[in-house]
Amino acid sequence: MKIPRQVYRQRIRKSQELMDDQGIDALIVLSLENYRYFTGDLRKQPRMLIPREGDPLVLVFEGEKEEAEEKTGMEIKTYRAMHEMMGIIIKFFNSLGVETPKVGIEMEFSTPAFLIDRFRIANPHVEVVDAKPVISPLRKIKDQYELHLMKKAAKLADTAMEKAVDMLKPGITEREVAIEVEYVIRKKGAERLAFPMFVNSGGRSQWLHGMATEKRIEEGDLVLIDIGPVYEGYCADIARTVVIGKATEEQKKIHGLYLEMQEKIIEMIEPGITILDIDRHNEKFMKKHGMKELYVKGFLHGIGLNFEETPFPTIFPEDQMEEVEKGMVLAAGHSVLAVKGTGGVRVEDTLFVGDEVEQFTSFPKELMEVG
Amino acid sequence: MKIPRQVYRQRIRKSQELMDDQGIDALIVLSLENYRYFTGDLRKQPRMLIPREGDPLVLVFEGEKEEAEEKTGMEIKTYRAMHEMMGIIIKFFNSLGVETPKVGIEMEFSTPAFLIDRFRIANPHVEVVDAKPVISPLRKIKDQYELHLMKKAAKLADTAMEKAVDMLKPGITEREVAIEVEYVIRKKGAERLAFPMFVNSGGRSQWLHGMATEKRIEEGDLVLIDIGPVYEGYCADIARTVVIGKATEEQKKIHGLYLEMQEKIIEMIEPGITILDIDRHNEKFMKKHGMKELYVKGFLHGIGLNFEETPFPTIFPEDQMEEVEKGMVLAAGHSVLAVKGTGGVRVEDTLFVGDEVEQFTSFPKELMEVG
Repeated sequence: MKIPRQVYRQRIRKSQELMDDQGIDALIVLSLENYRYFTGDLRKQPRMLIPREGDPLVLVFEGEKEEAEEKTGMEIKTYRAMHEMMGIIIKFFNSLGVETPKVGIEMEFSTPAFLIDRFRIANPHVEVVDAKPVISPLRKIKDQYELHLMKKAAKLADTAMEKAVDMLKPGITEREVAIEVEYVIRKKGAERLAFPMFVNSGGRSQWLHGMATEKRIEEGDLVLIDIGPVYEGYCADIARTVVIGKATEEQKKIHGLYLEMQEKIIEMIEPGITILDIDRHNEKFMKKHGMKELYVKGFLHGIGLNFEETPFPTIFPEDQMEEVEKGMVLAAGHSVLAVKGTGGVRVEDTLFVGDEVEQFTSFPKELMEVG
Repeated sequence: MKIPRQVYRQRIRKSQELMDDQGIDALIVLSLENYRYFTGDLRKQPRMLIPREGDPLVLVFEGEKEEAEEKTGMEIKTYRAMHEMMGIIIKFFNSLGVETPKVGIEMEFSTPAFLIDRFRIANPHVEVVDAKPVISPLRKIKDQYELHLMKKAAKLADTAMEKAVDMLKPGITEREVAIEVEYVIRKKGAERLAFPMFVNSGGRSQWLHGMATEKRIEEGDLVLIDIGPVYEGYCADIARTVVIGKATEEQKKIHGLYLEMQEKIIEMIEPGITILDIDRHNEKFMKKHGMKELYVKGFLHGIGLNFEETPFPTIFPEDQMEEVEKGMVLAAGHSVLAVKGTGGVRVEDTLFVGDEVEQFTSFPKELMEVG
């Protein structure tokens, strides 16, 4: 989808208003996701400078100038060596007309620890602060263009889940399923998967995180499948848990509990409720069923250009206090319910908080007996 | 391949000797690569603590205990919530018997900036230092098990390049090539690609980094292909540049120059030479051909569990002074030669510094006219 240039300019203007509120003189954009959010361009090792006032500046390797200009419509400066790039950045800081400019840099997963330490050493006259207070308020509320792309990503998630469930049978390996599913949805337009697909079977369904290994799927296994396809930069997230062959009473019980919990939460989501409220509700629910100690916090998280973004309570504890707002897209059902001897369950969907809550992913949720 | 447990224990012992040399009291291992290096286990969000003396400790989510125990043979402690994990880590620091323990943490790409900042705040009695002086000396010299896996990865790289070149023809998109190649080599045993494959065609061959877009391959395009397959954790890196249809004289010229430069460097590599020596040699070579200003520094880098690791001069300038040592595996041909109007060229191979230099990747290097 071609997003009008006006939209990117408006995102930049809004970031400048937030910089003004926060007393931040400039933003350095280093992540693929934020660079794409502000420009629409996809480029490895992006470098973009946004001053509190005036026009942004994009830095690219010399050979990329023409295309970057065409894609962003912004001012481009080029470099061939690292010291040239640093020179442009230092000149930009000087142009801000502030003795000790306060510069926001993304501190999240896109920025490695050494880079900030070295940046601070190389730029002693710059005060480095976390860009989150400027980026998160923008990114967490999705506009119509973003919603359109996220719905497409959710359709791919449904397609991927259907393909995965179709393939499951005793004897096939987790990895074989993952390879085919990824191939199919990339052919259908997925840019990539946001994270390596989980095909967690048997005892491995109890894992907090997952992957797809050489383990063969066996009769009686619970299989937890979690997929995050990316469509033109935007992610969706779906998880389902199925059983190979006939489900035991214990498997039915824990799957039923998880599903009840997830569906209740989707009903409860509305502007003003916090992530903490949701987790507290779930803890009470699990306590009622004698499983309080098995509840893993962090049932909801934001999703967009990153598959986990604000609110992101499992990594940023302060995000537990984030209130749900109209315009957010959330993934509901993030944590695993792992019961030793029985297995693990997760049912996760991508949903939009509009006037009503709209579920973007729609693959059936009931416990399926497959193979 | 099953690597004997003894090998992992020895790697840990060696890390403890290096900790002793550096006055580091403990290492916190957070990256998939280092965790795998020390345990052989593959696990998302790994957490491992290695004291300067005594046995290491592995922290996993409760549901993963059994498998982690079986895979690592090490002491396991489990957590269900983040505060439980932090509790185990704090107890471990106290057990070191040092008032202000000096703790090494990986600062490279695996560790995001916010995490170090928060760790420092949460652990004011701990002095955080970069783990690189302990990790790099170990990782940069490969043992026989690592070499075996890297040869396998290199074979996959050759297979991938052959498939890619076979597919190239006018009208096919870059993305179509990438999807098929990735599918084929994953079916042949690649765990994943270390980075999204580059199929940089036409003007895009001049890019420093790359990807595979919806752009269609056209007659006359230079196409720069760069692939990094991973086999049981270990990477190989290969790049080739081909032309669609008949090569122009300019295309032949720049490809010939690059290839001459790469082959000369491979001849020159021997213990004691530095990365800087190599770059200086190349600069002189390019100057002789009137192209000095087009040379991009960083022709060599280390490769192993990470597709770029020590020596890694494009990110860590101090690595320019690293001397080549026997036992290293290097990728030679990292930088692009981008000539406006003609296109970009890269020819890159993975090679082992043994008694002789042994090239692990072996796909033909001459300029191919394909399609």
